[in-house]
Formats: sequence, structure tokens, C-alpha cells
Amino acid sequence: MRSSGLPVLDRLINELSRLPGIGQKTAQRLALFILKSDPVYVSDLADAMLDVKEKTGLCRQCFNIAEDELCSICANPKRNPAQICVVEDIVDIMAIEESHEFEGLYHVLGGVISPLSGVMPDDLHLAELAERVKEQKVQEVLMAINPSTEGEATMIYISRMLKDLDIRLTRIASGVPLGSQLEYLDTATIGRAILTRRDL
Amino acid sequence: MRSSGLPVLDRLINELSRLPGIGQKTAQRLALFILKSDPVYVSDLADAMLDVKEKTGLCRQCFNIAEDELCSICANPKRNPAQICVVEDIVDIMAIEESHEFEGLYHVLGGVISPLSGVMPDDLHLAELAERVKEQKVQEVLMAINPSTEGEATMIYISRMLKDLDIRLTRIASGVPLGSQLEYLDTATIGRAILTRRDL
Repeated sequence: MRSSGLPVLDRLINELSRLPGIGQKTAQRLALFILKSDPVYVSDLADAMLDVKEKTGLCRQCFNIAEDELCSICANPKRNPAQICVVEDIVDIMAIEESHEFEGLYHVLGGVISPLSGVMPDDLHLAELAERVKEQKVQEVLMAINPSTEGEATMIYISRMLKDLDIRLTRIASGVPLGSQLEYLDTATIGRAILTRRDL
Repeated sequence: MRSSGLPVLDRLINELSRLPGIGQKTAQRLALFILKSDPVYVSDLADAMLDVKEKTGLCRQCFNIAEDELCSICANPKRNPAQICVVEDIVDIMAIEESHEFEGLYHVLGGVISPLSGVMPDDLHLAELAERVKEQKVQEVLMAINPSTEGEATMIYISRMLKDLDIRLTRIASGVPLGSQLEYLDTATIGRAILTRRDL
């Protein structure tokens, strides 16, 4: 590891390089930027980091991050509680919210079932999902889970878990992304898009 | 800008995206990583940032970063004070130190002369360099300045500034980087390497 000869700077480089996608060189560049920055910015950044840890927890209903007991989506009376969108991670909520196409509530699993990585159904918020669907007047569960092998397995697990309940169970469409060109797309995606073709 | 629906998280994403090379998506990924991290790590990272601002200043002799009046290099009695290596930026010191080929002291200019960007000689630590060379028993000034147009102009400025002093004035070699292939190298570098060829 390159050393700056200054313990206080080496320590910052070391801490920064533990962030995902930040290597040694980038950490050094960021550390030197911080070193030269306006002190107000640095203290704002440090505060923002500490605040996000101190002032947030998980929504007790959907496991999204929340500043209160319920997240801002669960607490919003304009959202439709009869629709629940099941996602792997909090970041998926942000992506879906940006599309402005879903008006219901969410449920964050915290991952997908992956026995190879040691993630079993009990490690995810699956039981809480079943309970929510049973106890609240839920009409539709929309699975917005990434269509990976583990994602598909998780969707099968959820559909079995909820099969006796009188709800509509849906999944987001897989297919050709808007703006992409067929010739550059993988065959599995093209095959899936053909199999799940729609009538016009 | 994508919003997480959570002001405390949005604020962190916003602060992170002000770092160089960190876009909105990366800032979001880092913010979520911080959100899920061990609180000890987050407080260590925040502390390291604040410390680097609070506990460091510039070395009064060479303008490297320092925890005391003098940086660790200027304060090291094993370094040779008769050699001064002139660099643009603190980051260059780190790169040169890693090569273990220089035993003298440094002088950080804080940039290069660039009238187009509004950087004039007075904005750099050039006067301080002249004073150091005059007042201390300096035998060699090695210019390790990036060989850009502005860098070349700065080297010419320094050589004129120091021309009446009885010192050896050198610059690091420009040429073909070790491990690179001539066919992929730019013509200016090849031309320079031929002009500055050495006898074997």
C-alpha cells in the first residue's frame, strides 16, 4: 500500500478503500480531495454519514429504511395498501419510485433465496410478507425481483407460500429493455420475450 | 435526481456526489452501503475525515501536508537537504516516495503556471522556492513536473528564476514508460525519447 507518510491521511485512505468499488488509488484521490476541501463540506459529509446511521431504522411493516416506525411510503395515506410490491433490496424501491408507475406499498425481502451463499428462506422477510398478506386486505402481490436464477427460485417460493390466499400474484415483465437492439441482446432475454409475447 | 423519500439519506447521497468522480448512482450505492454498515466503521470513517482536516496543515518549508510545523519528510534528519524535488501537487510526492529513488526534500508548487486557467506565478509557491534555494545550501533542484504544455512553461520559468544561482538544475526524464510498447505510444513521447536518447 502506498503511504503518504502521514498517519492521519493513511488512516482516511484506508477507511475510504473499504467502501465498495473504491480501490486504493481512488481512495487516495478522495482523501486528498477531502484534505483540500472546505472544512464546512467535510463536516457536512461526516454529519450526513453519522445521521444516516443514527436517525434511521427499518420500517416495521415493509423493512424499507425509515426515520420513524413506518417508512415514508407506508405512512403515506395516498398509497394503496391493497397492492404490495415485493423487492430484494431498498435500492429497488428507489428505482421503482422513480418510474412513478406503482402506487401501492412495498415489502423488502433483504435478498433472495440462495443456498449456495447460505441464504435460506428464514434469513429473508418472507414470513412477515405472508403475515402481512393474510392480515391486511391485500389484493395484489407484485414481485419485482431480479430475474436471476435465485430470483426465479424466490418467486416460486413466494407463489407457493401464498397460493392458498385469494390474491392476484403478479411479476414484473421480463423482456427487451426499451431502446435496446435485439442483435446485441442475450438469447435468454430474447427467448423469454418471445415466450411472454403479448397480443396487440 | 432520484430521491430515496428519506431526507437524511438524500442528504448523504447529495454530499457524496460532490466528491470527484462520484456520480449520482455511485453516491447512492455508497450511501446504501454506509446505511447497512457496522456503525463502528461509519464513525471511524467520519472521524478520519474530520481528523484529516483538523489535524493537518501545510509544512511551512515545502507545503506538503503535515501534522506539525514541518512535514515528516522535512523533519527527517536522514533526508538530504541539499536536494530539492519540485512537484506540482502533494499526490506527486506520494508517487515519488513509493519509487524509493529520491532521498532529498520536496517543494510543492500547488499547480503549474496556466494563464488560461488564471494561474499566474504569484499563485504558486515559486518565490518560496527561490528563497529556499538561496538561503539553504541547496546543490540540486530536480523538477518532477508533469510534462504538459503548462508543466514545460513552469519548468522554463523556474530555470530562468534560478539561473544565476550556483546549483545543478535537473528534470525527470521523459520517454517510453517501462513495459509499454512503442507501437501504441503517442508520437510526441516517441519523438522526445529519441531526442533525449542516452549513450550506452
